[in-house]
Amino acid sequence: MTTATIIVAAGRGTRAGGPKPKQWQQINGRMVADWTIDLFLPYGPVVLVINPDDTDIADTLKARDQIMLATGASERAGSVRAGLEQLTGIQPDKVLIHDVARPCTPKPVIDSVLAALETGKAAAPALPVTDALWMGENGFVTGTRDRTGLFRAQTPQGFDYQTILSAHQNHPGTAADDVEVARAAGIEVAITQGSDLNLKITAPEDFDRASRILEELYGSATG
Amino acid sequence: MTTATIIVAAGRGTRAGGPKPKQWQQINGRMVADWTIDLFLPYGPVVLVINPDDTDIADTLKARDQIMLATGASERAGSVRAGLEQLTGIQPDKVLIHDVARPCTPKPVIDSVLAALETGKAAAPALPVTDALWMGENGFVTGTRDRTGLFRAQTPQGFDYQTILSAHQNHPGTAADDVEVARAAGIEVAITQGSDLNLKITAPEDFDRASRILEELYGSATG
Repeated sequence: MTTATIIVAAGRGTRAGGPKPKQWQQINGRMVADWTIDLFLPYGPVVLVINPDDTDIADTLKARDQIMLATGASERAGSVRAGLEQLTGIQPDKVLIHDVARPCTPKPVIDSVLAALETGKAAAPALPVTDALWMGENGFVTGTRDRTGLFRAQTPQGFDYQTILSAHQNHPGTAADDVEVARAAGIEVAITQGSDLNLKITAPEDFDRASRILEELYGSATG
Repeated sequence: MTTATIIVAAGRGTRAGGPKPKQWQQINGRMVADWTIDLFLPYGPVVLVINPDDTDIADTLKARDQIMLATGASERAGSVRAGLEQLTGIQPDKVLIHDVARPCTPKPVIDSVLAALETGKAAAPALPVTDALWMGENGFVTGTRDRTGLFRAQTPQGFDYQTILSAHQNHPGTAADDVEVARAAGIEVAITQGSDLNLKITAPEDFDRASRILEELYGSATG
């Protein structure tokens, strides 16, 4: 049973601020992408899907063992497909697909996804939505939404490799995440336990929170 | 300009586990409710809305200055209305309405709500939804939801006192939060900056995270 991971790092991350895309910014002495890659190397090879403009930064990563590069597309689904096709030579049994902007994923979150793949073809972590939900526009609330039965999706989202490769190759348009692609292909997706520590860096202040979580998980920065 | 706070503490908090409702459980040496009350006492009087079964615990709180008690209803909107009516003698200019299960609210979150009330009748903190959203049932994903324009509501939600009192007295049914009550009465609600530290304790593991946040905000536990 072999596992590979695709890390989607082709976005420009403009909302997070800073001089370069968030995945290449430093956090606790290393690039965000380094923290994220290291979460998954213990499980097998990692494909990093990057923007064609970022090949200079990525060259420094390629020197590391077990890291392959793929060139991303203008939207997420295309980038994931490029990553999946990069793995056709390896043909792993399972594949994990992860956002590069989630460098703090606790190991139990990853292991629960892999455990669920022992009995199913797709599994992904989530947390129930516990806050009330609003629609907002121009700084004002414009509506409310029922949160009953709603979950906040996280990554890594895990799949049987052949199943998700075929689903992506046949998916017509864009998608919010790979679960949407899988479900469009009729694949049942199990929900596993997410974590509040599994932060996605989106806004500038998220760097501070991610830094604190990494310290909690791994001790003080040494970089 | 006077401000009062209503803290809604009438829920039974069964999802959070433990031998008693979450607001009466200990965290870093004090009850959750104590931490939450202390966030708001600097701004003026506090009304704690409690369940009729909890009067013994609440008696220990009543001994503290500036804390009033009100008896809650079976659903949230009724509890808030009871709190608002408890304040008719004081007639504050502004009122903040807060979940007792949010003991970690950073001061800037509260101050931003009050600042927005200088120019409007209603304001409340929120964060944009950055995760993909799913519908889930029985452990499987049953659908996806567009997150565009969606916000996760937090508290304290702040209002002109007379305006929200009248809105609650005329509101027919239940409501997810007080923003829903205000909007049903035609009141425009400004969105202010929420915080990821403004955790609502819901599940058992939230106690650990709240404990860490309180340590970050106030230093190590002394209780």
